[in-house]
Amino acid sequence: MRRIKLVVAYDGTNYHGWQIQPNKITVEEVVNRELSHLFGEPIKVIGASRTDSGVHSFGNVAVFDTVARIPAEKVCYALNQRLPEDIRIQSSMEVPLDFHPRHCNSKKTYRYSILNCTIPMPTQRLYSHFFYVPFDIEKMQEATKHLIGTHDFKSFCSSKTTVEDTVRTIYDLKVSKTDHMVDIVVTGSGFLYNMVRIIAGTLMQVGIGAMKPEDMVSILEKCDRSSAGPTAPAKGLTLVKIEYEEELG
Amino acid sequence: MRRIKLVVAYDGTNYHGWQIQPNKITVEEVVNRELSHLFGEPIKVIGASRTDSGVHSFGNVAVFDTVARIPAEKVCYALNQRLPEDIRIQSSMEVPLDFHPRHCNSKKTYRYSILNCTIPMPTQRLYSHFFYVPFDIEKMQEATKHLIGTHDFKSFCSSKTTVEDTVRTIYDLKVSKTDHMVDIVVTGSGFLYNMVRIIAGTLMQVGIGAMKPEDMVSILEKCDRSSAGPTAPAKGLTLVKIEYEEELG
Repeated sequence: MRRIKLVVAYDGTNYHGWQIQPNKITVEEVVNRELSHLFGEPIKVIGASRTDSGVHSFGNVAVFDTVARIPAEKVCYALNQRLPEDIRIQSSMEVPLDFHPRHCNSKKTYRYSILNCTIPMPTQRLYSHFFYVPFDIEKMQEATKHLIGTHDFKSFCSSKTTVEDTVRTIYDLKVSKTDHMVDIVVTGSGFLYNMVRIIAGTLMQVGIGAMKPEDMVSILEKCDRSSAGPTAPAKGLTLVKIEYEEELG
Repeated sequence: MRRIKLVVAYDGTNYHGWQIQPNKITVEEVVNRELSHLFGEPIKVIGASRTDSGVHSFGNVAVFDTVARIPAEKVCYALNQRLPEDIRIQSSMEVPLDFHPRHCNSKKTYRYSILNCTIPMPTQRLYSHFFYVPFDIEKMQEATKHLIGTHDFKSFCSSKTTVEDTVRTIYDLKVSKTDHMVDIVVTGSGFLYNMVRIIAGTLMQVGIGAMKPEDMVSILEKCDRSSAGPTAPAKGLTLVKIEYEEELG
């Protein structure tokens, strides 16, 4: 028995997120289906990040076990032949049998993209959120300083969540602008439900002057979802990469 | 009577190009339809560039005439309310009645994008051509020198064309690479049918070593379509902008 790790990129536009759901098409379901066809045995992957409906990925991680002898590095090419165009395995490699994509320590990096100009650009509509009020980028950058570090991010977590421990660590959080595209890139030890989208929605409030950079301090302290800004739409969010502490394979 | 100029951006994925065709949906048809609804009178635009099926645009140009009194600058906002998401008017302005988007002198800029890496990235599949053999970018850049200037571009023109004068001027032609994305950006006085896609296909041949940079000289001299490289696929092509000599409005 071997465990194989896949790095999975997808355009989330046409999927109801990663995780299998009844009567809705998901990335996990399509990957399971095509892996099962490829190996001629039922295969179920374990995914690292259960991205929401409409969220994109450059590098989600999934593992599965098999006794088949196909070289691990070749799995990505064989699988890509079968997958629809909007899902592409970026790499495949053998990992230790005890490697678990959610339980092993990792750093995740997400990007939230906002097209900030007066009129939307059609070719960018699927991968960014359009917002026409001009942002004060420096203010948004100032606000990030208060969010970096280890904090209780309960205010930045969907109230639907059932997680008890809402302390997380943000290692890095940057706001940059290229032409009209504002990118918020955040790296952390793990993220609460909707956390990146709420951070993006809150930084947008700062960008338009509805909140001050220093308001981030009191928002964190309140531990109350209603103190933070709105949840920014899913289509602006991309899971960029997941890095594991241990060198794998 | 006033003439109004529109700058039209679109995602060409779901259109059979710009120009109206029977039984196929085109950008021109949709713009005409929504303009006619907006103004309550039948309106037909005159477009600058008849982009092919699947080609994208940041700034095609179209004009139409009307006696309606709506301020020209407001037309883009009113029209965008009605247009589908994959078409967006970037600006609207009044221009002289004798302004014709195809007959007035202009410079057009196109971009051809190629994702040059081992595995396609789903979120880039609609707006770039994927090609996995690594390019020698310097060789491609060297080849561009021979194409810049005024030449008979008959070798770089679809053999389907009926145009007699195949002399055109390329003012600028640049190849650059950012991450895995290779962009070919070309500005010229006008382009023959498929010219940018044949230039892209030929530069790709240079990039993989199948042609030499100096081969561009003999390809131009031959005035024969079969001497140049293949026509690169439509989806990698974007009409970036059209600049008119006279200041308008």
